[in-house]
Amino acid sequence: MSGTDFVLDPRLAADTRPITSLPLCDVLLMNDARYPWLILVPRRHGLIEIADLPDIEQQVLWREVNQVALALRSVAPCEKLNIAALGIIVRQLHVHVVARNPGDAAWPGPVWGHGQAQPYQQVADESLIPALRNALAPYA
Amino acid sequence: MSGTDFVLDPRLAADTRPITSLPLCDVLLMNDARYPWLILVPRRHGLIEIADLPDIEQQVLWREVNQVALALRSVAPCEKLNIAALGIIVRQLHVHVVARNPGDAAWPGPVWGHGQAQPYQQVADESLIPALRNALAPYA
Repeated sequence: MSGTDFVLDPRLAADTRPITSLPLCDVLLMNDARYPWLILVPRRHGLIEIADLPDIEQQVLWREVNQVALALRSVAPCEKLNIAALGIIVRQLHVHVVARNPGDAAWPGPVWGHGQAQPYQQVADESLIPALRNALAPYA
Repeated sequence: MSGTDFVLDPRLAADTRPITSLPLCDVLLMNDARYPWLILVPRRHGLIEIADLPDIEQQVLWREVNQVALALRSVAPCEKLNIAALGIIVRQLHVHVVARNPGDAAWPGPVWGHGQAQPYQQVADESLIPALRNALAPYA
């Protein structure tokens, strides 16, 4: 289902680490150790709004969002999941899935635009990324 | 499809005006004239995460979110739609659909937790609410 013209937005590419590819979306880890935070990007050229996707692919998108949310929560237990398609700064369609816990850097406010990202240290990459890939393997 | 035990969260009730009922969700207008802002609430008791809904009702939820997003944009043209399920302050499952435009009170940041709501004046209610009801009538 890969669109041949799809290119990941350069800001998303710079701010994230690739985790896996699901049938419709690439799954990226936001490089911000303050919150376990995944991003889904449908591999389709020129999408801005969810409504730009055909109905059948909207269903696939939301199924993948749900799979990613459950996988994230299994790896990073949380009090509440945040799921959002905002897209004001980066227009390329993407969906955030963030694991939130009381006392996290932005709690109870939104994570977007809050302070500065804290990049992961190497040791965190070495445990978190394989755990996420493993949790998402059934859907890839 | 109404759940007999469903009661709207009192904070959502206080902050919104009812617009219409779709098969799964009640649709509410946030009483904040800074942004055209609708909220969908599935009429199901005890839901917190989208993953708490059965798969088939998740599909209905996202279809209704898309219908509400398109209806909102038809009434309140916007540069970008924001769609989000956050639920940290009000835990009852609800999905935000916000019409965003450059120069709005929070642009380009998120609307949640930004400043104080500006309640609609009577005259705005009298044009916006019927227009939203009319745009959503095909789906109700």
